[in-house]
Amino acid sequence: MTTAAATIGDEAAKLDADDPLAPLRDRFLLPGGVVYLDGNSLGPLPAAVAPVLTDVVHRQWGTGLIRSWNEHGWWDAPLRVGDAIGRLIGAAAGQTVAGDSTSVQLFSALGAAAALRPDRPLLVTDPGHFPTDRYLAEAVAGRESLEVRHVAPADLDGFLASEGHRVAVVSYSPVDFRTGELYDMRALTDATHRAGALVLWDLCHAAGALPVDVDELGVDLAVGCGYKFLSGGPGAPAFLYAARRHHAALTTPLTGWTGHAEPFAMSPDYAPAPGIARARIGTPPILSLLALEAALTAFDGVDLAQIRAKSLSLTGYFLRCAEELLTPLGFEPVTPSDTARRGSHVSLRHPHAYGLVQALAAQGVIADMRAPDLLRFGVNALYTTHQDMLTAAVRLRDVVRDDAYDPAPQPSGRVV
Amino acid sequence: MTTAAATIGDEAAKLDADDPLAPLRDRFLLPGGVVYLDGNSLGPLPAAVAPVLTDVVHRQWGTGLIRSWNEHGWWDAPLRVGDAIGRLIGAAAGQTVAGDSTSVQLFSALGAAAALRPDRPLLVTDPGHFPTDRYLAEAVAGRESLEVRHVAPADLDGFLASEGHRVAVVSYSPVDFRTGELYDMRALTDATHRAGALVLWDLCHAAGALPVDVDELGVDLAVGCGYKFLSGGPGAPAFLYAARRHHAALTTPLTGWTGHAEPFAMSPDYAPAPGIARARIGTPPILSLLALEAALTAFDGVDLAQIRAKSLSLTGYFLRCAEELLTPLGFEPVTPSDTARRGSHVSLRHPHAYGLVQALAAQGVIADMRAPDLLRFGVNALYTTHQDMLTAAVRLRDVVRDDAYDPAPQPSGRVV
Repeated sequence: MTTAAATIGDEAAKLDADDPLAPLRDRFLLPGGVVYLDGNSLGPLPAAVAPVLTDVVHRQWGTGLIRSWNEHGWWDAPLRVGDAIGRLIGAAAGQTVAGDSTSVQLFSALGAAAALRPDRPLLVTDPGHFPTDRYLAEAVAGRESLEVRHVAPADLDGFLASEGHRVAVVSYSPVDFRTGELYDMRALTDATHRAGALVLWDLCHAAGALPVDVDELGVDLAVGCGYKFLSGGPGAPAFLYAARRHHAALTTPLTGWTGHAEPFAMSPDYAPAPGIARARIGTPPILSLLALEAALTAFDGVDLAQIRAKSLSLTGYFLRCAEELLTPLGFEPVTPSDTARRGSHVSLRHPHAYGLVQALAAQGVIADMRAPDLLRFGVNALYTTHQDMLTAAVRLRDVVRDDAYDPAPQPSGRVV
Repeated sequence: MTTAAATIGDEAAKLDADDPLAPLRDRFLLPGGVVYLDGNSLGPLPAAVAPVLTDVVHRQWGTGLIRSWNEHGWWDAPLRVGDAIGRLIGAAAGQTVAGDSTSVQLFSALGAAAALRPDRPLLVTDPGHFPTDRYLAEAVAGRESLEVRHVAPADLDGFLASEGHRVAVVSYSPVDFRTGELYDMRALTDATHRAGALVLWDLCHAAGALPVDVDELGVDLAVGCGYKFLSGGPGAPAFLYAARRHHAALTTPLTGWTGHAEPFAMSPDYAPAPGIARARIGTPPILSLLALEAALTAFDGVDLAQIRAKSLSLTGYFLRCAEELLTPLGFEPVTPSDTARRGSHVSLRHPHAYGLVQALAAQGVIADMRAPDLLRFGVNALYTTHQDMLTAAVRLRDVVRDDAYDPAPQPSGRVV
């Protein structure tokens, strides 16, 4: 190890030794010999999941059979798991429902927002928003005779000054999925509200990673996935939050039977359930949903402020590692060093991002990339260590220094 | 046992002894002491599921982590599982996708149908259709400026004679979820096509229960759930079939990122994937989806014609049991005795249906009811025996004869 690495290595050891959340790592079953920095794409396996799934499969499904819809609380699971997620995003009980995919929940939330602001023809989204947010915005706009306007968060004030009275909803993510930049949720929410519009936050890269406080901020609608920082498993159900003040008027486009006021009356006509239950759609995937519920216990007793502090320590430390070890080799950090503007992953730009991520994986460091040239390193305060960050930086430096990677670009059709 | 029951009991023993599918019962982990006749609501646990889930959780998720999207075929699972379901409904590969709930798939299919017949303003559905089919038809109609017409299958010909040229899609189920009546899919499909309309079949009560042959019938669109006769687990993902001839023009309302032609290019604009992959929406719930895939292996090597023959034997036998043991006590069978008009469950009308089903459950016979007065007894040829049907009939007779049940109606809010 070079002197620089040794010095910065001392820092990792000290930061980890002083980490009050360090014991929480035991709540996850991390494979040996792997540094996992892709929990922002798929969280690792929480230790609580497998015992719960075994119980759900054998005792609840196998033995309880249909009776478990009542006796093991399957029917209420979307609301119960929704409330558990709500606790992590600052939502009081009864405003969050879990189920379906983020894409479906986005469609539902955008449709609900449009219905709440029927005289406003514009739907604002971020030109840098995750693709599915953009695609669903176009889909909803096409059906609701709205127009989509792509306005970067930095330009929102200016846009609202001229067009704000025509905006139904502003649909943003607090964290840029490419760069890891964190936007000012409060300022953007307030600006949207001053224009009389609703705000819809996609919390995929925020829920479980940092305090969000949707109630306190006065957020109108929010969605997010269960499989990133919530570690609910591959394709874990997503969630939808709608502020209580909107419930009475909330109409969603997907009026499935489980959102009915009396689903087992089998009534010929749809009548929405009171409260957030009206945002339920169809029969939820119970195995995946109860795995998510078990995964959420990894947050038991943990304050989101502690999580945020450690996350910033990890990403800040990695940015220092990058500055010492990687920028001299041509990497450009694109994640803000300002802690107020940094989410829970760090992205480094390099023209050979794809090959480098593959080479790192072969060295036991799992990160990911976003085309064409960003390497992403996600941290989760529940299990990531500063030593993990150091190892990633050192191995990445070595791979480049030793020219031990394939510079070919990402092949078309390659997934993840 | 009375003489009548003894005679009919001999018949059960003989039918079971001659049943070529009897060994398949070992493909399910049925709890001891229980007669399970509610597989038309939730299929029991197939023996293949738990080992697969253990592998998916520990090896694929826990150890493989994000890499399993490629290395363990998670990404292709919706298409692979779709094809496996396709084999059970007569769909050649590449036309069926698994994922989401039946409600979401109905919304998707109805929206796609409306887009394929843009100049036709009517959406026909069955007044007796399952509620979510009705609710989603209203939802889609409201958004597409269509009108819903409720036309019973028996009245379809007459309706189409006058209004057929205005019909975009006829959305039916081949099996009435209340009565178990089976409609003539071929005749209804042909009539719909003669009117130039599309047909959408909800196969929830048909897939895995009887041969459907969507390709051979020329069906346009179909949906169905994974948790009834497919035994994929509580809330198992649903499926959507779209005939290949429609793929090039198929536009779905829910344009999520996984249906994109190049999902990992993260393109700002939506471009649908070729083929049925464009009907994918968001990230699928992998645990539930791979449990369903494992469950489908219970059909390996079994011909749907054999399943149909045994299903009819079971329901026919139960109707005979009912005639001997139950109609004298006031039960009215509402399921047709004509085999061509009978699905895979038998419904008996009785004013105290709710209390009787509860009393039966206390006796180890699990059936269900549909408000206000139908008891339902579902059979699945993979595991149900004629002895099961006899036991159900005898215990139901005894419960009534001994007045050993609560005649109170179904309490409001009770689920399942």
